[in-house]
Amino acid sequence: MVLKSKTAEANFDSLLRIFTVPEGPGSTLTQIEEEISQNLNQFLREHIVSEEKPLKAIEQDFLASQIPEQPVFVSEHTQHLLDKVVAQSVHTSAPSFIGHMTSALPYFLMPLSKIMIALNQNLVKIETSKAFTPLERQVIGMLHRLIYTDREDFYTQWMHSANHSLGAFCSGGTIANITALWVARNNALKAQGAFQGVEKAGLFQAMKHYGYEGLAILVSERGHYSLKKAADLLGIGQQGLVVIPTDEHNKIKPDALKATIRRLKQQRILPFAVVGVAGTTETGNIDPLAEMAAICQQEQCHFHVDAAWGGATLMSHQYRHLLNGIECADSVTIDAHKQLYLPMGAGIVLFKSPASSHAIEHHAQYILREGSKDLGSRTLEGSRSGMAMLVYACLHIISRAGYELLINESIQKAAYFADLIRQQDDFELVSEPELCLLTYRYVPKQARLALQHSSGDTLAQLNQQLNELTKFIQKKQRESGKSFVSRTQLTPKRWHYLNTIVFRVVLANPLTTKDILHAVLEEQRHIATQAPSLLRQIEHSATAILSDNI
Amino acid sequence: MVLKSKTAEANFDSLLRIFTVPEGPGSTLTQIEEEISQNLNQFLREHIVSEEKPLKAIEQDFLASQIPEQPVFVSEHTQHLLDKVVAQSVHTSAPSFIGHMTSALPYFLMPLSKIMIALNQNLVKIETSKAFTPLERQVIGMLHRLIYTDREDFYTQWMHSANHSLGAFCSGGTIANITALWVARNNALKAQGAFQGVEKAGLFQAMKHYGYEGLAILVSERGHYSLKKAADLLGIGQQGLVVIPTDEHNKIKPDALKATIRRLKQQRILPFAVVGVAGTTETGNIDPLAEMAAICQQEQCHFHVDAAWGGATLMSHQYRHLLNGIECADSVTIDAHKQLYLPMGAGIVLFKSPASSHAIEHHAQYILREGSKDLGSRTLEGSRSGMAMLVYACLHIISRAGYELLINESIQKAAYFADLIRQQDDFELVSEPELCLLTYRYVPKQARLALQHSSGDTLAQLNQQLNELTKFIQKKQRESGKSFVSRTQLTPKRWHYLNTIVFRVVLANPLTTKDILHAVLEEQRHIATQAPSLLRQIEHSATAILSDNI
Repeated sequence: MVLKSKTAEANFDSLLRIFTVPEGPGSTLTQIEEEISQNLNQFLREHIVSEEKPLKAIEQDFLASQIPEQPVFVSEHTQHLLDKVVAQSVHTSAPSFIGHMTSALPYFLMPLSKIMIALNQNLVKIETSKAFTPLERQVIGMLHRLIYTDREDFYTQWMHSANHSLGAFCSGGTIANITALWVARNNALKAQGAFQGVEKAGLFQAMKHYGYEGLAILVSERGHYSLKKAADLLGIGQQGLVVIPTDEHNKIKPDALKATIRRLKQQRILPFAVVGVAGTTETGNIDPLAEMAAICQQEQCHFHVDAAWGGATLMSHQYRHLLNGIECADSVTIDAHKQLYLPMGAGIVLFKSPASSHAIEHHAQYILREGSKDLGSRTLEGSRSGMAMLVYACLHIISRAGYELLINESIQKAAYFADLIRQQDDFELVSEPELCLLTYRYVPKQARLALQHSSGDTLAQLNQQLNELTKFIQKKQRESGKSFVSRTQLTPKRWHYLNTIVFRVVLANPLTTKDILHAVLEEQRHIATQAPSLLRQIEHSATAILSDNI
Repeated sequence: MVLKSKTAEANFDSLLRIFTVPEGPGSTLTQIEEEISQNLNQFLREHIVSEEKPLKAIEQDFLASQIPEQPVFVSEHTQHLLDKVVAQSVHTSAPSFIGHMTSALPYFLMPLSKIMIALNQNLVKIETSKAFTPLERQVIGMLHRLIYTDREDFYTQWMHSANHSLGAFCSGGTIANITALWVARNNALKAQGAFQGVEKAGLFQAMKHYGYEGLAILVSERGHYSLKKAADLLGIGQQGLVVIPTDEHNKIKPDALKATIRRLKQQRILPFAVVGVAGTTETGNIDPLAEMAAICQQEQCHFHVDAAWGGATLMSHQYRHLLNGIECADSVTIDAHKQLYLPMGAGIVLFKSPASSHAIEHHAQYILREGSKDLGSRTLEGSRSGMAMLVYACLHIISRAGYELLINESIQKAAYFADLIRQQDDFELVSEPELCLLTYRYVPKQARLALQHSSGDTLAQLNQQLNELTKFIQKKQRESGKSFVSRTQLTPKRWHYLNTIVFRVVLANPLTTKDILHAVLEEQRHIATQAPSLLRQIEHSATAILSDNI
């Protein structure tokens, strides 16, 4: 027994060591850190996927369901992580990884993020964050000003006001969008007479009190899927997310929006929020925000702009006009982990009015006492990390002018790529880039001609074959690990609204060169030859169409 | 013009450099990183607050609302961060920071977190996470097994199943609790006949279809404030969070719970979820989970256990019995950033049934296609970081046995501190520790005697004066920066349910020694002498009470 207890004590002592500040540059931990850095640098110089392995095979390394009973050394486990996790990860910041909105990270964020992790501040309350709280408020103020360009004294008055928030840091755009719509819902169904407001009395009582039959959030058919989640979560129901058609440039049709609002109101359904998209996920287009804002003001709807991806464009004097009207939005979502080049986990919602977020205020006895400057009283989340510090660092080190260079370069690169695609006789540009996102597909020369001359079933059949080919190419390209584009499904007017599968490219990585873009097309063209039977089917369909048309 | 364009090009080239892998150990960035490490190690060896400054003064450093127009060097900005942010932060992992659930971090997490930041994986979909997806599924499986102890073949079948999730990683306990209650709400109001379910048709239609007058979530009066947020967000309304009284040990009264469920049902209010607390935030007590589970089964309510803080106790063979009944919960919240010693941002919700989360499933065209293993289709959040990797590393490096040592030590240390407080004649233990959390207050000797002999207004007056003293001591102690305890407000039965302000102590840091606990009491006793007029008032009240009683 004595022996056992002594062992326990010895074990506890060795556990204590893992919580103790390591001494000096020669420590084991410092050596491990150097090894990690070298390995990561190696990885980040290489291909997108260092080793192509089917998911099923990777899963074999992650089958144990029992928490290990015995500890392993840090060095040993580090090696395991490098072999089994790093080596089997996706190099999302590779210059040829042009398929998603996750892009390259500035290298200075690696050492700086150490500060965030080591200090482990909790932004929910001042007591566990201190300087991080005013810092976060400042970052929110800066992004607010980027959008709303209010005057200096506005920020002097509100930025650090205990009872107000100009916005909220969130784990991502989904939480930011949900927060905005939560505020909108609560403000639309607020206390009145004996009714205590939806936040207290709930949605059922609110609907009965106001005499509504339903609630609606309106967004274009290109809206992000998080809005459907929001409608579900907030009790409105996914059917309450009313989808408005877009024009051939994937922008909402203002007339249709207006007509739908009127129709809903006649049905006693309250369209309490309209969402404008500033950079749709699938095509990168921006809704006519100013027109939408005018409609919202007239119809008294909360106007939210989901600029999760495109919001960073405001940094560019040259292109910020593309988002004209955003300054009229009641709330705006921006993801710093997209075009502000931050690591994952930095969504932000901004509110035009410092008082908006009162609608979601919560207090408790042990924290968030009224009048405190604790940020947690007006956020959806509770405990939160000091991610704002990294945004703060990027805003200073890159600066507005630096961001402008990055944004302009991205947009111009997308225009270049669009031109390049147009020059090919076996590629088809499906959606034009407005920012740095475009979609296209590979269409053999003869099939391109046939598409022009077909309709009905023959068009549908050929299009379906092309869809199969696009899927094949995208999958093979991903698996070969040299480059990556994503894919999605659109319904272009040109092809009679048929479901059309396309390659989707996002050109935010400043290291992506023109050579890489040329190589991507070459690679796709080459992969197509690996699907001879699909190509034959396409050729067959095309020939039939063309011979019918002669 | 040519010159201007050349400058822009030169600027862009220097921007490119920040995205390029730094070369070798002599690079500027490596030097900066070393400087940061040294500075952080220095900071982490020091007091809780290196420099006491009022918040107003700190805010002066964060007043600018304009995003800087010109870039600054990384080295220059790093120095700024060290001076203005690090130096003015709270050292949450100091051994004498015993006031919150945020505790020390194992040092190996600093180098390992580099992997997370540098790889910047996005867990929403396989395409941007690869090995991280099976890794996260495994971590969820391990924690599921820790709670539910299902057999090996259960995990073989479900852990990596594309159409199922045993749980979800969240940014924190708030999102985890909301996710659980969202699932519960949607399962309680599911599709039936022509009604398409609350997720599609919304809450108003659901209530009409099912003929309910309201919905309720039941929890003890010690439930976390995030539940109120959840009730608001989900459209139930804060009034739908029905609070059940607790016994003198801060545990829910099962009879009251049962009676309330019955009463609500008679009122056609559906009590669709009951939340058991496994470690209340204010007193650290655990509800009688097994009894609650039995009631929930009988009454057909979803049983959720909020074990955000206490869940880690399951690692201890010696103490896991304290949570008996948790294995009957339909869902459980555990925060890895609390007693699993992870950095901020690691909440997890676990579901007993692999099918539970179907109730919140969402899909899109470009990601989360049906049948894919993308984790994003059953999480509240969208894009998410690779935090699961750090949990994975801790589970391996610390191991089950290591966590047991940490948990046991914390619980035993709290018992020691409780004894120590009991031995003092001028301190009063207000809530006994069940895990490693306790509350107490400083009560001068004479006042302790007087409390025993008073009631009504005189008791209330004395208690109020003691509240002022507790607030004074806690504030001074925090400001002096040597140690930190938090405070909250309880209503102890012993003091006739009067609002009683108490010190709140959480002893999770393994480096907190017995000497520190002794010193904390000494410090508080000493601070009390700095409030002579408060002490005189207390003495006066006490003397009056005691002389009346003689």
